[in-house]
Amino acid sequence: MTESVLFFGAGSPDGLGGALARKFASEGQHVIVTGRTLEKVQASADLASEDGGSCEALAVDVTREEEVGAAFDLLEQRGHSVAAIIYNAGSNAIIPFEELSASQFESFWRIGCYGAFLVAKRAMRLLAAQGQGSLLFTGASASTRGKANFAHFASAKAGLRNLVQSLAREYGPQGVHVAHVIVDGVINGDILRTRFPQYLEQVGPEGSLEPAAIADAFWYLHNQPRSAWTHELDLRPFKENW
Amino acid sequence: MTESVLFFGAGSPDGLGGALARKFASEGQHVIVTGRTLEKVQASADLASEDGGSCEALAVDVTREEEVGAAFDLLEQRGHSVAAIIYNAGSNAIIPFEELSASQFESFWRIGCYGAFLVAKRAMRLLAAQGQGSLLFTGASASTRGKANFAHFASAKAGLRNLVQSLAREYGPQGVHVAHVIVDGVINGDILRTRFPQYLEQVGPEGSLEPAAIADAFWYLHNQPRSAWTHELDLRPFKENW
Amino acid sequence: MTESVLFFGAGSPDGLGGALARKFASEGQHVIVTGRTLEKVQASADLASEDGGSCEALAVDVTREEEVGAAFDLLEQRGHSVAAIIYNAGSNAIIPFEELSASQFESFWRIGCYGAFLVAKRAMRLLAAQGQGSLLFTGASASTRGKANFAHFASAKAGLRNLVQSLAREYGPQGVHVAHVIVDGVINGDILRTRFPQYLEQVGPEGSLEPAAIADAFWYLHNQPRSAWTHELDLRPFKENW
Amino acid sequence: MTESVLFFGAGSPDGLGGALARKFASEGQHVIVTGRTLEKVQASADLASEDGGSCEALAVDVTREEEVGAAFDLLEQRGHSVAAIIYNAGSNAIIPFEELSASQFESFWRIGCYGAFLVAKRAMRLLAAQGQGSLLFTGASASTRGKANFAHFASAKAGLRNLVQSLAREYGPQGVHVAHVIVDGVINGDILRTRFPQYLEQVGPEGSLEPAAIADAFWYLHNQPRSAWTHELDLRPFKENW
Repeated sequence: MTESVLFFGAGSPDGLGGALARKFASEGQHVIVTGRTLEKVQASADLASEDGGSCEALAVDVTREEEVGAAFDLLEQRGHSVAAIIYNAGSNAIIPFEELSASQFESFWRIGCYGAFLVAKRAMRLLAAQGQGSLLFTGASASTRGKANFAHFASAKAGLRNLVQSLAREYGPQGVHVAHVIVDGVINGDILRTRFPQYLEQVGPEGSLEPAAIADAFWYLHNQPRSAWTHELDLRPFKENW
Repeated sequence: MTESVLFFGAGSPDGLGGALARKFASEGQHVIVTGRTLEKVQASADLASEDGGSCEALAVDVTREEEVGAAFDLLEQRGHSVAAIIYNAGSNAIIPFEELSASQFESFWRIGCYGAFLVAKRAMRLLAAQGQGSLLFTGASASTRGKANFAHFASAKAGLRNLVQSLAREYGPQGVHVAHVIVDGVINGDILRTRFPQYLEQVGPEGSLEPAAIADAFWYLHNQPRSAWTHELDLRPFKENW
Repeated sequence: MTESVLFFGAGSPDGLGGALARKFASEGQHVIVTGRTLEKVQASADLASEDGGSCEALAVDVTREEEVGAAFDLLEQRGHSVAAIIYNAGSNAIIPFEELSASQFESFWRIGCYGAFLVAKRAMRLLAAQGQGSLLFTGASASTRGKANFAHFASAKAGLRNLVQSLAREYGPQGVHVAHVIVDGVINGDILRTRFPQYLEQVGPEGSLEPAAIADAFWYLHNQPRSAWTHELDLRPFKENW
Repeated sequence: MTESVLFFGAGSPDGLGGALARKFASEGQHVIVTGRTLEKVQASADLASEDGGSCEALAVDVTREEEVGAAFDLLEQRGHSVAAIIYNAGSNAIIPFEELSASQFESFWRIGCYGAFLVAKRAMRLLAAQGQGSLLFTGASASTRGKANFAHFASAKAGLRNLVQSLAREYGPQGVHVAHVIVDGVINGDILRTRFPQYLEQVGPEGSLEPAAIADAFWYLHNQPRSAWTHELDLRPFKENW
């Protein structure tokens, strides 16, 4: 074991978080998965460890600098070279602007954008010093345009995207691969199945994104040679109307 | 006097704030100019009043909900129909990501994006009830892409842009004209002249944007018939390399 | 009379062509309107002349270099300073890709993009020599993205948009104002009323763009001081779902 | 051997064309490489065959419908399932607009956009009937914006991009994966080395894109499960200033 990876917002064992943990662990990397709820993160780590993967869990609220710091402290304690850091935190909800409170607007920004800043600050210390490594972020179609009833989400996601672009331009020449994955559509994971089962039925058997397929995209980005780096790609189901 | 307008971030007498106040006052509207420093805002109001315009000043920190509220209370007390509300608050600085603190990152967002949310919340109550009126925002070229050393600014401005797009889509059909003006270049005002005199010299006599020309664009947008509304336009000096 | 303007694809007396002719003529400019069908162009010119405007008509197929040349020869014969040249040629139709022939694909490009090149070639000789003047183009929402059943139109319009951007960057510093107007929606003119009366009914009384409102936008662009030029703006009805 | 692929504009043995042929042949696919010059295409095919790959060459001018047709006839004669069709044709040159002739402008469009249409027409017959397969296109940074001295190239490439987006939206739901690869930077191949050796020196040892790395991206796109398809990604050297 010579390389570690650290994932934020990776607490969904049956969603993208779990898929990322399984993928990177199966490729021989030591995986630290973090998320708000320890129970869920631990479940993700356990699943990823089942087939012999090396994976550990930590509860982290990405909006708290000290908790983000603790995750990086743990990463540094492992002593490995750092391969990749992925920021997947974020949540979504339909909220008409009239019903949107100032604290909600701020909260979406804290999780969707400010937490990414906190992670990037600590990540760049490590990755720039190494002169290599990947720092990858999850975006959405709302990253590129506003939409009625999604002012909070579209604003936070756009803030994230331009942060990522700035980082890519600033740290790319130093050997750090910064990229943004636009996930356009719903992920066929536990969140969707629990909260919106009727939506899943509506889009049909192939109308949602498989978490493992998204995780493969992150793995591909991480492994690109620096001669030809991707800074943004989109992912959506073939049936998606976009 | 039957119409009022309310401007935020309009404290620069010799910059865009002052030009907006002069333009709208000269067109017969009652103008409330606000900005962080009462002295500067008052100077803007005084200049706009010189030729007989009706203009008053109020010190407002756009990041404080109660101060934004006080400005709207004043607007409502005037009892006029509300023609336009313009959000021009924002600041910029070159900061390498390595030197960027969490509080700086947050501060740029508070002024550049969160304040706009607070203004939009109160503005939409009035404008949607009226079924007409303009809500206009000042953007920058960084609104559309990230840049090295501008992560803080580009992130805040992108967050603003997608907020504005969401508002435009949500409130346009209700008769509220929401638009975003991308100012690409430096404004030939007191801020530039005081802080970056050498830059002004460098771009030459026509390399910066005249505040009055930008104010004309806001006036044009405000007066578009709703049969053909613009939601975004860019403004830059003809010499600009973009 | 000291200034002339020349419009291409302006043959619709009751549409944008006619509105442009009326607007610029009413502002005191000598207007040369051109379009494929002399009868229609002449009707546009006659309407614009009714209130004392100076307007003449010429039949021009924008895809033929010699006919474009003849229009510019006429413009030069008038001997005035050239204020603005507007390229509004283009047509649209829903065609599934499976039914789209190579000659159709090429034809949409010839009218939508190649004709604009021919016009720009002759226009730039005049405008760059003058060191001033506007060269304005009509775009569509398809200019910025592809759509099912509109491959032909979206491809031609994107080709036009990047041509315009290239011209703006190349000739802006020489004093020529090049801009692109994205008309997003249907125009409430004779074409719509004759061919798609049911569509007009469907979008309702304020669901389409008034030609005069679009013409005002072109007039505004033409009159911007070069300290703050717009290179692209969108226009759409307030009801539009975008 | 059960799958074939067909590449257009793949005549550079030491460039992207050759790399694509080697990659797909090494993965066990029968490769048909085409390009304008038989000698070069044959050299690409020979190189790809060296390690046991199955590869054949055909001279094809993509702007001629009958030559494009002949390539597809050959593909159909092979009788395999069609895995992927890649359109890589295109050329570039710096040409100030003043020096750009109508025939040059048209020629860039014919190679950069019209040829892609011809290929897509034949490709979609096969791929839509199969209900699977990839149709991939090579773009450039000029695909997304115009630039001074590149009106011809930026216009053609934008026309291609919107054509591709239209195809993706129209044929994606039928199971055909349509994607656009934005190659931003110069490719470290024979064209660059022969024509612009000084440029290669200027950007340094890692300042250009390795053809094999780009070919890997095409291979990755082709192999994405349809649950999570990418429709556009960018590729650029880590050193690139963008």
